[in-house]
Amino acid sequence: MQDDIIEALIEQFRTLPGVGYKTAQRYAFSIIEGKRERAERFANALICAKEKIGFCKVCGNFTDKEVCPICSKRDRKIICVVKEPKDILSMEKVKTYNGVYHVLFGTISPLEHRGPDDIKIKELLARVSQDEVEEVIMATNPDVEGDATAMYIAKLLKPLGVKVTRIAQGVAMGSDLEYADEVTLSKALEARRDL
Amino acid sequence: MQDDIIEALIEQFRTLPGVGYKTAQRYAFSIIEGKRERAERFANALICAKEKIGFCKVCGNFTDKEVCPICSKRDRKIICVVKEPKDILSMEKVKTYNGVYHVLFGTISPLEHRGPDDIKIKELLARVSQDEVEEVIMATNPDVEGDATAMYIAKLLKPLGVKVTRIAQGVAMGSDLEYADEVTLSKALEARRDL
Repeated sequence: MQDDIIEALIEQFRTLPGVGYKTAQRYAFSIIEGKRERAERFANALICAKEKIGFCKVCGNFTDKEVCPICSKRDRKIICVVKEPKDILSMEKVKTYNGVYHVLFGTISPLEHRGPDDIKIKELLARVSQDEVEEVIMATNPDVEGDATAMYIAKLLKPLGVKVTRIAQGVAMGSDLEYADEVTLSKALEARRDL
Repeated sequence: MQDDIIEALIEQFRTLPGVGYKTAQRYAFSIIEGKRERAERFANALICAKEKIGFCKVCGNFTDKEVCPICSKRDRKIICVVKEPKDILSMEKVKTYNGVYHVLFGTISPLEHRGPDDIKIKELLARVSQDEVEEVIMATNPDVEGDATAMYIAKLLKPLGVKVTRIAQGVAMGSDLEYADEVTLSKALEARRDL
């Protein structure tokens, strides 16, 4: 027995990733109990983000400018290639990386009918030729599609004389060997290094 | 290195209960990646809820009508007294309850300088005299303030010839005696029933 308007708000919160009915209800009540200005600020932030945030014309990152802060300030000689804009955020946690990014907006996936022309590979090749890039780091996901896409792009880039690397695959730091799956363990063994 | 507009949206999501930076970021990205219409619907739901949802003039529940659906359809002879509107939701999980509610909007708390006149006790007394109420169930929280408020209200109601009850306090169903605190256990022992 709840009003439609409250239900409508709960429904909206439920569209957020990982939010179930009870969490959405908590969120909705916090809005209803809160001040009017807060709801307005929230609504404005939503609209504003959707209106003003677009893609960086260089790398494809989310930004409200033409060129994102990363592209305009950092070393363009190293490009880290990722699948989606939000992967940039994950990579940015590595504070020591000072290069730029390139978002593919997908990976090659025959099953989903996505070929090399459906993702931003041409744009990457153009950047590599233009910007005197020294290294391209393939940071697509460590799965079949991510690996295949990385291999495909590496093949295209090597003739251009650029160094192409892939982020290492192995056991995660702080994890427990007991719980590591066999594919990860076999990759970790294969890529073992001298100490 | 993130744009201010994205940060502003993340900040808004962080105001929701129990949402930290990473969760807020995930929510924000889901909005940015989503369709424009979705952001608009979301923003509208926020504004609409804040504009149209008020309090039921009978019980104090959230509603967009003058009298909430519970008050207009259910048995007014039994009133369940709660501290906040959202407590009604919790009580409503008990599908067998067919009475109405009364929201106090707080509890008596000398420490926070909240006396009996600062919460909706007068309104409750008026309802009890008007509606030929048979039973008032005190469902304030099982803590010191909730108990004190329940006792205070019971004292006022008894002269009106109405039955006043308090929800039972004891060990929670499905819990483990090993982890029950001593206050709860002593309450459970005190209120033991014949089998």
